[in-house]
Amino acid sequence: MTLTGHMLIGGQGIAGSREAIRAINPATDTVLEPAYAGGSSEHVDQACTLAWQAFDRYRETSLSARAEFLETIANEIEALGDALIDRAVAETGLPRGRIQGERGRTCGQLRTFARTVRAGEWLDVRVDQSQPQRQPLPRADLRQRQIALGPVAVFGASNFPLAFSVAGGDTASALAAGCPVIVKAHSAHPGTSELVGQALARAVKKCALPEGVFSLLFGSGNEVGIALISDWRIRAVGFTGSRSGGLALSRAAQARPEPIPVYAEMSSINPVLLFPAALAARGEALAQGFVASLTQGAGQFCTNPGLVIARQGAALDAFIAAAAELIQRSPAQTMLTPGIFRAYEAGVGALAEHPQAQRLASGLAAEGPNQCQAQLFLTQAQNVLADVRLQSEIFGPASLIVRCANDDEIRQVCEHLEGQLTATLQLDDADLDRARALLPTLERKAGRLLVNGWPTGVEVCDAMVHGGPFPATSDARSTSVGTAAILRFLRPVCYQDFPDGLLPLPLQQANPLHLRRLLDGQREA
Amino acid sequence: MTLTGHMLIGGQGIAGSREAIRAINPATDTVLEPAYAGGSSEHVDQACTLAWQAFDRYRETSLSARAEFLETIANEIEALGDALIDRAVAETGLPRGRIQGERGRTCGQLRTFARTVRAGEWLDVRVDQSQPQRQPLPRADLRQRQIALGPVAVFGASNFPLAFSVAGGDTASALAAGCPVIVKAHSAHPGTSELVGQALARAVKKCALPEGVFSLLFGSGNEVGIALISDWRIRAVGFTGSRSGGLALSRAAQARPEPIPVYAEMSSINPVLLFPAALAARGEALAQGFVASLTQGAGQFCTNPGLVIARQGAALDAFIAAAAELIQRSPAQTMLTPGIFRAYEAGVGALAEHPQAQRLASGLAAEGPNQCQAQLFLTQAQNVLADVRLQSEIFGPASLIVRCANDDEIRQVCEHLEGQLTATLQLDDADLDRARALLPTLERKAGRLLVNGWPTGVEVCDAMVHGGPFPATSDARSTSVGTAAILRFLRPVCYQDFPDGLLPLPLQQANPLHLRRLLDGQREA
Repeated sequence: MTLTGHMLIGGQGIAGSREAIRAINPATDTVLEPAYAGGSSEHVDQACTLAWQAFDRYRETSLSARAEFLETIANEIEALGDALIDRAVAETGLPRGRIQGERGRTCGQLRTFARTVRAGEWLDVRVDQSQPQRQPLPRADLRQRQIALGPVAVFGASNFPLAFSVAGGDTASALAAGCPVIVKAHSAHPGTSELVGQALARAVKKCALPEGVFSLLFGSGNEVGIALISDWRIRAVGFTGSRSGGLALSRAAQARPEPIPVYAEMSSINPVLLFPAALAARGEALAQGFVASLTQGAGQFCTNPGLVIARQGAALDAFIAAAAELIQRSPAQTMLTPGIFRAYEAGVGALAEHPQAQRLASGLAAEGPNQCQAQLFLTQAQNVLADVRLQSEIFGPASLIVRCANDDEIRQVCEHLEGQLTATLQLDDADLDRARALLPTLERKAGRLLVNGWPTGVEVCDAMVHGGPFPATSDARSTSVGTAAILRFLRPVCYQDFPDGLLPLPLQQANPLHLRRLLDGQREA
Repeated sequence: MTLTGHMLIGGQGIAGSREAIRAINPATDTVLEPAYAGGSSEHVDQACTLAWQAFDRYRETSLSARAEFLETIANEIEALGDALIDRAVAETGLPRGRIQGERGRTCGQLRTFARTVRAGEWLDVRVDQSQPQRQPLPRADLRQRQIALGPVAVFGASNFPLAFSVAGGDTASALAAGCPVIVKAHSAHPGTSELVGQALARAVKKCALPEGVFSLLFGSGNEVGIALISDWRIRAVGFTGSRSGGLALSRAAQARPEPIPVYAEMSSINPVLLFPAALAARGEALAQGFVASLTQGAGQFCTNPGLVIARQGAALDAFIAAAAELIQRSPAQTMLTPGIFRAYEAGVGALAEHPQAQRLASGLAAEGPNQCQAQLFLTQAQNVLADVRLQSEIFGPASLIVRCANDDEIRQVCEHLEGQLTATLQLDDADLDRARALLPTLERKAGRLLVNGWPTGVEVCDAMVHGGPFPATSDARSTSVGTAAILRFLRPVCYQDFPDGLLPLPLQQANPLHLRRLLDGQREA
């Protein structure tokens, strides 16, 4: 459990050769040891060489072997015990209960992908048997399966030090698909990353897999990231972070001689629509739910409700008054890093200076370093229609209420929204027709639509979509949470007239994996 | 059936305002009337406006209504009768039987997608029911379906005037997914395009769909194409053509404020591996099959076998001698356009001047305009490893045999290949171990692997993959032929805690569409 300050290239601890990063406890502004010297492009090359060597063997591991590997990772993370929790709390300023819950989520996610791997539906096996008698031409025997894309580069996120970091959703889904993974750790939590990386490397060893299946790199600047995304052996990228970061990675991936897909989850303000009947019937409860969702975890969620849209009137005024009062009583909270705190302050400052934004309330004053105050602003629909800057994401507990004159303005504001991860509808029965009329717009704008809930809280399950049109993500065709995330790292291959013994197991005529194939156009029972 | 020289914007015939194109009969070098004046960016705007207006309604048409629309398009194309065949033959120089076959393929393709739409598996319905008692937190009700991406721009291909053009595979799969389509016709066959466009517009009208579901534009330069791909309402692109064309479209799509996916099928030389036992046992038959595949349709197929890889020796020498003799007796054939003929001549000329390529044989001399001679070249493995130019696609009946000193050189050449649509293995039982050892490499390089067949001839079925790693296509995760092509134009949306009456039909609790849902982790029977 000792922290070494080393990277993991394959199973080996390797000291970096570039400027070191050290974690900072944001609650105390103290520096945490050890130092993590950054990797160089040579280290990237070594990790990619090992990943490439591991790829062909790893992608053909049996479904059960791969599932057991994912479960072993979960077991090894749990075996880290309190050392992991202590370090993650120190590096993030997040409450202990939150980190414990996130560990449960992370290990549950790995086990969920193990079930998905075993079920094998992601292989999408399609068999069209030969028709030698067909006129005018016989049909060949054609069989399709999905195979892994290749080694995947994963960039850890700041705000989920476990669930979207070294062994988080991107890593779990890429490993599930059969892709070796090289993680560039987020510099905010290197110790947490090392501990989880050690657990993952132990799982690789216990499962007797080639060591290149997993590597973990550190780096303070762009060198490691750009070298990774530019390496010919890397075939896809998973990223959760800022819009500017995601766009830079997408550009680099497109500039390669052979472009590769980038799955970047970037920026969303998660509009909440308060419909009139709901607002009139339970405005106070809505204000409580809204402020709880907004301030949870210091608002550091991709799905934080940063925009509220409603029709003007007494009911909205009452909601605003209730929400403003709750915000004013809301305690300051430690943010993840000094940098995130500064960016939040800058974002709030810019909105406060916007001539068409009115500050309604600020939370309680900070009592320690890097503590943010919740913020509530108000503007009119016409301003949002006129200035896209009012849609800028402020990462943290700040939200903007958009007062609309009538239903048509609500519709216009919705049509004017950038792409989102989520859109939330607070409605009662009398609002159903209004909601129905807006659904086509909202379906075009967001990956997940919620009724009478709050967007924070993202279930790991089959039906989840944590994705959405640009700029919410770089690829609206995908989700980064839930079992469908595995589909991002696969491509189809067709085998024509292969002798049975040369076919990969999932395609052999006897169907040894007992898959429900699409056989001559019919799904098998 | 009269040709008007007009574009179709929605249901309306509209005369263009830019430089006109006229088709050329490549067999006679005569110009065909009428002239097709090119569209402007204003015409693109009009078509996009109509497509956008049509989108929300069209994407929610019932499965049966959408399937009937696809079938009606097929019926309307068939109703064009000989007028279509005559015009397509005149515009392409392709034999009448080939065009008739391609019409059958095109209409069959539309009907295949109708079946796929009705079956509804593409909706990928996933339902995770609520668990209100779950500890520590209840689970919401979550339901996922796929919805259409939005209006799609399709760029018609030169070499399949029906099957990859106005109502070809890209259009059929996009319409099947629920996307309105705007086609930029290929300038080589505007009359064929207009006839099929009229058939498609009639189907839109007969099915009482919004007129913006389909538009057809002409244009001689880049104006229409760039305006189309830059329009914010276009959400995906289908393209079959040259590498430079596909890359230009990909760059334009990435440069948009909101980047969109481009499915470009570009460039492939379709390596054929001749294994020793097969070569020794049936070298002559292999030479016949190879030359037939190479010269079919003047070699104007994406899957044309442009590279042959084999181990040196007497068996290869015999194959080379037989193939060279067949090539020498091979009649010249009219190519699709004067431009394609010139490009073929230039490609052959460049290869002939390559110091490491030896010309083995040329086909019979031309007897008319735009007629190409088949060409066979030879080189050594080391040259292919040293110079990627020896992998350049020559669109037409030219192929390069790569003589390898041993199995390791064969492996090296395969590892050195760019991405391909296909890779073919000619093998006998005694070759199986050698073939098995190469499969991991070939799976990484190509979308379709064939045993003892020839790559030309692409079946439209569930298991087909007509795709492959870059530069074969811009997106190895997809196929442009076969029913899986529909998946390119979809994105997932999740509905959380929706009242049943507000849910779209495929997600309602009673399962009114009788879909086999993924329900609480189990596939329904």
